[in-house]
Amino acid sequence: MAQIGSRICIIGAGNVATHLAMALSESVCVCQVVSRHIETAGRLADMVGGGCLASDNLDELLPDADFYLISVNDDRVAEIVAGTPDFPGIWAHTSGSVPADVFKGYKSRYGVFYPLQTFTRDLDVDVSEVPFFIEGVDRDVCDALISLANSISRSVEEADSSRRKVLHLAAVFACNFANLMWVEADEILRSEGLTINYLMPLLKVTLGKLRDISPAEAMTGPARRHDTDIIESHLAMLPPDKREIYRLLSDAIMDKFGK
Amino acid sequence: MAQIGSRICIIGAGNVATHLAMALSESVCVCQVVSRHIETAGRLADMVGGGCLASDNLDELLPDADFYLISVNDDRVAEIVAGTPDFPGIWAHTSGSVPADVFKGYKSRYGVFYPLQTFTRDLDVDVSEVPFFIEGVDRDVCDALISLANSISRSVEEADSSRRKVLHLAAVFACNFANLMWVEADEILRSEGLTINYLMPLLKVTLGKLRDISPAEAMTGPARRHDTDIIESHLAMLPPDKREIYRLLSDAIMDKFGK
Repeated sequence: MAQIGSRICIIGAGNVATHLAMALSESVCVCQVVSRHIETAGRLADMVGGGCLASDNLDELLPDADFYLISVNDDRVAEIVAGTPDFPGIWAHTSGSVPADVFKGYKSRYGVFYPLQTFTRDLDVDVSEVPFFIEGVDRDVCDALISLANSISRSVEEADSSRRKVLHLAAVFACNFANLMWVEADEILRSEGLTINYLMPLLKVTLGKLRDISPAEAMTGPARRHDTDIIESHLAMLPPDKREIYRLLSDAIMDKFGK
Repeated sequence: MAQIGSRICIIGAGNVATHLAMALSESVCVCQVVSRHIETAGRLADMVGGGCLASDNLDELLPDADFYLISVNDDRVAEIVAGTPDFPGIWAHTSGSVPADVFKGYKSRYGVFYPLQTFTRDLDVDVSEVPFFIEGVDRDVCDALISLANSISRSVEEADSSRRKVLHLAAVFACNFANLMWVEADEILRSEGLTINYLMPLLKVTLGKLRDISPAEAMTGPARRHDTDIIESHLAMLPPDKREIYRLLSDAIMDKFGK
């Protein structure tokens, strides 16, 4: 289990690594940050404090840490796994779309420590509200990673690689595609000298509703009302690319919701 | 201009009427609520207080108010306009999609008093943050309605009927279609025994980014990265209706954003 006094090496110093290191350093000992650039490793080690070491060389990785958290871009996880020794501590990466199998044959005790959040450098995130999804090669490893996650978040669950993939797929719809709708709205408004900012109060309330009711119950608008007069007048206002999206999504809403 | 002491009749007692009446009653005199049902009219008049009258009969409408706000379902505006006298006060409806012309030939002094927000009975909305879009048949009427809106909101602009239509169209994308993405995500998650609630911290941060950067700048995800491996693996996981949406929206993102 992750005891008070557990020692953690963080590999990576980007947005995710930074937010995790800062949150973890409140309850456990983040003893080393290794990153390709000594400046970013040093900056994060300084932020963590408590004598945390900084290095730009994986050969200097401490051999006796309890956890090694690999928090780098998805496409760099495999090379780091292959390029480091099988130290006895627990190895985990923080990526939603890399399977736990990436460790197979290279490490004995491994798992996944996935925070379902988009971290931006200058944007504060309350890590205690971030859901963590945990996978471990065996019960012991899984419990240790769960305990570590519990030390920083109130929402911790087990999820194997296929479940994590479903979460990622859902996040593409909920975040990336919803954001595309805001891009389209912004473009429409800019043609009238307005911006998406005018819709922010409306968007806040629209999202806020999901605290109390499901998105299906919260649905409103012309397609939900099967108001074909308004739908047709909207289609006539749109350029072809937006018209195709408007038509497909309105049809999807009308199919899903009866009159 | 809307002076302290202006007297307002509200026609309607639904969600929009209720939120507006309560906000207006803090700075002007809401003197009458007329609604089809005496119970709902009475309930709102009691909430407003200050001797506000309640009626279920448009024939009892006070002839000497400064403003008559018609806040009912879109499809009832025209009949109410046609069924009431041309009292000398200013008439306005609160609908985004009904043109100001609905008053033409029936009233002399008229306009639109449109709050760009979705009001839900039990959900508190800070009206001072709601953008109001105002239209008036002449300068005098427009100024009076702007002044009335300024008494309850910090965001008041003029918008003619065609501009209001663009706002409504943008809101369909930004709210209704974004909400459809949350419906799809919720359905995907429920297949794994999860719900959209797991994505709420992520959604809050995604929306919060728009305070600082445009939605185009905030775009992330596999399509933004042109990561066709992940896109193909996601398509393979989806049923046909969701696959069509995923493909069209990913293509739209890839078209909009270079590698």
